[in-house]
Amino acid sequence: MGSDTSEASKVPRTERGRRTQRKLLDAAAIEFGDRGFHDASISSITRRAGVALGSFYTYFDSKDAIFRALVLDMSEAVKVAARDAIDDTMSPLTIERAALESFLRFAGEHKEIYRIIDEAEFVDPESYRAHYETIGERIALRLEEGGKAGELRANLGEVEAWALMGMNVFLGLRYAIWSREGDPAADEVARIANSLLAKGIRA
Amino acid sequence: MGSDTSEASKVPRTERGRRTQRKLLDAAAIEFGDRGFHDASISSITRRAGVALGSFYTYFDSKDAIFRALVLDMSEAVKVAARDAIDDTMSPLTIERAALESFLRFAGEHKEIYRIIDEAEFVDPESYRAHYETIGERIALRLEEGGKAGELRANLGEVEAWALMGMNVFLGLRYAIWSREGDPAADEVARIANSLLAKGIRA
Repeated sequence: MGSDTSEASKVPRTERGRRTQRKLLDAAAIEFGDRGFHDASISSITRRAGVALGSFYTYFDSKDAIFRALVLDMSEAVKVAARDAIDDTMSPLTIERAALESFLRFAGEHKEIYRIIDEAEFVDPESYRAHYETIGERIALRLEEGGKAGELRANLGEVEAWALMGMNVFLGLRYAIWSREGDPAADEVARIANSLLAKGIRA
Repeated sequence: MGSDTSEASKVPRTERGRRTQRKLLDAAAIEFGDRGFHDASISSITRRAGVALGSFYTYFDSKDAIFRALVLDMSEAVKVAARDAIDDTMSPLTIERAALESFLRFAGEHKEIYRIIDEAEFVDPESYRAHYETIGERIALRLEEGGKAGELRANLGEVEAWALMGMNVFLGLRYAIWSREGDPAADEVARIANSLLAKGIRA
């Protein structure tokens, strides 16, 4: 996934080191997602990663540290997935639709993300809050740019940004994590949500 | 707060018993909110409630049981707060605005609600899911009624209901739990969110 884990992990100097750190983060995502923070263990993470137990400490100081790095890594991965789905030629509303669709697909492929981010509220409250504040600021910026371009209303701000973030998080919870047979696909969910954004729900 | 705790607690036969059960639930909200599920204890709950330790088991079988009852109680309390803020003469959009404003005020006065509901994801996943599915169904029903009344679009469904629920949950997180000096008040947040709902964000 992403790579902006510098605050919580040591920065590897070699490409091989970066690959090992990546393996540890991917293994940690599975371990924390399956077992939760308290039951997860460093030895199980290194076993899953195929890395010697002693090497762990080359990359992370503790279970807390790799958890914190993982939350940052997942924030970054969500950002990268959205950015990859977006291009400059899209209208502001199309950007929101593409960002949501890419998030729904990403969450469907990484179902552990909800459990890990949500557990951060208890294990590492600062990371939890930073995760949402960062996304909220990014959305607010997109709305502001859309306003400047004359395609969105000019007075959109933080309230709309958090409303939009909440929509996306809960649509991911319902349609990626708690998905059911017969549900609309990601592109259809994103289309319906985008229609709400574009014109509201008034008749 | 609410009273629909029958699945997780024993039903008191006397008014005095109901009052004691109420005291235990209110004390549990503070205890679980302050200390989290794992560090919370039955003895501390009864001490906070001013109830003899032995009496606890007249009302609940275990710490798990009172936690489950508390999640149901909080779901019910949110519902009651919204219902009390709404009346039949309101338009469907005004109903959504009043429901959000009442939720923001409720969450501001009961900040422990987020921690408790969110911890249910780990302590009691079924209650967590039921909490949101119940609210989602209630919103979907309101949207459908608004559509029948001709005031909302006729084709609104579960996607819009979950989008709206996510908006409300995240606006509560930002403006009731993580509130900052200079933030707009509850009625202003609800007004802005309602404008998004009414007409969308397109210029």
